[in-house]
Amino acid sequence: MNLDNYISLYRNSLLEDVIPFWMKNSIDEEYGGYFTCLDTVGNVYDTDKFVWLQCRQVWTFSMLYNRVEKKQEWLDIAIKGAAFLTKNGRDKEGNWYFSLNQQGKPLVQPYNIFSDCFAAMAYGQLYKATGNKAYGEIAVATFHNILKRSSDPKGIYSKAFPGTRNLQGFSLPMILSNLVLEIEHLLDPVIVDDTIKQAIHLVMNVFYQEDLNLILENVHMDGSFSDTFEGRTINPGHGLEALWFIMDLAVRDNDVTLINKAVSIALQIVEYGWDKAHGGIFYFLDQQNKPPQQLEWDQKLWWVHAEAIVCMLKGYALTGNPACWKWFEQLHDYTWRHFPDTANGEWFGYLNREGRVLLPLKGGKWKGCFHVPRTLYQGWKTLEDIKMKKESTVLQK
Amino acid sequence: MNLDNYISLYRNSLLEDVIPFWMKNSIDEEYGGYFTCLDTVGNVYDTDKFVWLQCRQVWTFSMLYNRVEKKQEWLDIAIKGAAFLTKNGRDKEGNWYFSLNQQGKPLVQPYNIFSDCFAAMAYGQLYKATGNKAYGEIAVATFHNILKRSSDPKGIYSKAFPGTRNLQGFSLPMILSNLVLEIEHLLDPVIVDDTIKQAIHLVMNVFYQEDLNLILENVHMDGSFSDTFEGRTINPGHGLEALWFIMDLAVRDNDVTLINKAVSIALQIVEYGWDKAHGGIFYFLDQQNKPPQQLEWDQKLWWVHAEAIVCMLKGYALTGNPACWKWFEQLHDYTWRHFPDTANGEWFGYLNREGRVLLPLKGGKWKGCFHVPRTLYQGWKTLEDIKMKKESTVLQK
Repeated sequence: MNLDNYISLYRNSLLEDVIPFWMKNSIDEEYGGYFTCLDTVGNVYDTDKFVWLQCRQVWTFSMLYNRVEKKQEWLDIAIKGAAFLTKNGRDKEGNWYFSLNQQGKPLVQPYNIFSDCFAAMAYGQLYKATGNKAYGEIAVATFHNILKRSSDPKGIYSKAFPGTRNLQGFSLPMILSNLVLEIEHLLDPVIVDDTIKQAIHLVMNVFYQEDLNLILENVHMDGSFSDTFEGRTINPGHGLEALWFIMDLAVRDNDVTLINKAVSIALQIVEYGWDKAHGGIFYFLDQQNKPPQQLEWDQKLWWVHAEAIVCMLKGYALTGNPACWKWFEQLHDYTWRHFPDTANGEWFGYLNREGRVLLPLKGGKWKGCFHVPRTLYQGWKTLEDIKMKKESTVLQK
Repeated sequence: MNLDNYISLYRNSLLEDVIPFWMKNSIDEEYGGYFTCLDTVGNVYDTDKFVWLQCRQVWTFSMLYNRVEKKQEWLDIAIKGAAFLTKNGRDKEGNWYFSLNQQGKPLVQPYNIFSDCFAAMAYGQLYKATGNKAYGEIAVATFHNILKRSSDPKGIYSKAFPGTRNLQGFSLPMILSNLVLEIEHLLDPVIVDDTIKQAIHLVMNVFYQEDLNLILENVHMDGSFSDTFEGRTINPGHGLEALWFIMDLAVRDNDVTLINKAVSIALQIVEYGWDKAHGGIFYFLDQQNKPPQQLEWDQKLWWVHAEAIVCMLKGYALTGNPACWKWFEQLHDYTWRHFPDTANGEWFGYLNREGRVLLPLKGGKWKGCFHVPRTLYQGWKTLEDIKMKKESTVLQK
């Protein structure tokens, strides 16, 4: 497939398939907010509202409005989702609940800081789209609350007994490395710089372990390896997603060394995570090849493949490394053969190891309007970037 | 296969394969307690100690000592496990931790009341075996603590926002219906009767829903159906395990009506849960055929099949219903073709939908020395019972 065909595919899938699917099926006209539990054809099969998925959809529609086209209907969808979230999403301390019922009443407490991370992203983009200060204030207050909670993100909901085995997790530094650029326009530049430095340090020097040449999900507080279920866990999709966030930060700082290091680690992770028997990237692996705790370890998830595609495309656009292009083509091929549902639109989310659909859904508790459209947007734009560079012969094969 | 062959298989697997496997591989001579994370050949791949699995192994070895043979080495194993647990297992309020590290330091808080349930069972059996009052006191104190916590088993670790959707869960009444007989010898008879009545009522009238002819995992506080992920969840193995507990309670009370009702529901559940395409019983199903939340929904787990076998054997022994025997043979055939590892001993725990081994382990965070030996013991004894009844022609084909 040539570059123009790739560009058309990513662009058209975004604008003619995926976004229309969510516009048609996910809007709750009765209570506000979005349905994310959509079956194969787009019917709502459950009405619970998972706050991080609500936030992610606000982000997606605001982002498209900001970066693709000033379509009023996109902005209206984002504003309506934010209205529901502003009214129902937080407890008295400003922490974002994990989930709400259809009417907006809290179901699950703010035990998980990822609701807050995606709330900050959503309100940051919506502020950009509207200039409405109220959105900006929510984004900033939420961001500071995240920083405040970052040393103990689960707080009273943590089940770990303090002191016996204190581990630090990869998720928060990873998300912060993306979030900080998302809401840079709202933050004190000193805080932006500190957060970026800290995020790069954690991803590249702490969770990335040079001797293993892999990114770990959990390490001791001093950064050393923990030979435990948590410590041995590798989530290749997480690592690849984090590395394209790092590439974005490196571009901002013009840091070629950091770009090259990120690309080199990404190539190692995708090779490590690839299922040589059936294709696709595993969900979880144990660094020592011991049995992982996660029963779903061998499944092939949409977001893992979507983020891997973005990572390889950015790596190629930034370095011209042909290994990145080769992996992009291999990932693209697997992904487009397995995930998109050409009959009913959008992508399936969960395949078994052999690549057969495991759950006949387009959205659920963990899949919403986010990874697929973001990947299609990022893929489209990065492919255009690659084409432009090729035409100006900066990139040599 | 004739009855004698079945009897030999269950007995010999228990005494010559499974119990020796755990005796050889699971004893931590250095710190006490047991290793449960054992790989295919029995090597320890992780040293964390999950309290409910520790308790279950104490129970298994005490039970064998009480019911099969007064082997000192079995009793010694149980006593050593209990010593580790007595020293390290509880917080100041007497709640049992979820997990400990190898040395016995608490890792995960007592967020889960199942540690306590299996502690009460373990110390109850060990008291029976030794007559040591200290064990009896721990069993009784733990049992009363369970009753005290039963209306809010997760306590401060619950993530549910109070009031929006209060559901009651099936696990605790199900376990209580077994636990109460296990430690009957230690309890006030009034409490025993009350607990049995309440457990039977909850299993047979509340979680069993007549219109669906199925047992649900979660219902509203008033017993009505909740059309939510939690409310729609069916766990066929759970239902079948609970129903043989109910059969045991019915035998104690000579309640033929209850026996027949339990058998009839069990036959419905096993039919419902059976995978018509690949054989075996699904782990989770959605009552309305919507996508379940559990990514592992289609996997075939050892304990589900083990408990289903016991349920069908007891059903047959008690009623002579040929449908029970037919299902026993079908379950036996699937189970013995897929789970036992004839090369290295014991059973694999986790198969994918097609019946291939998903995790090359004999034990882990959730699988220990419990369901397999209990099933082999219960199978052996129930098959002997069936043989005896056949010989005395009480059971007519």
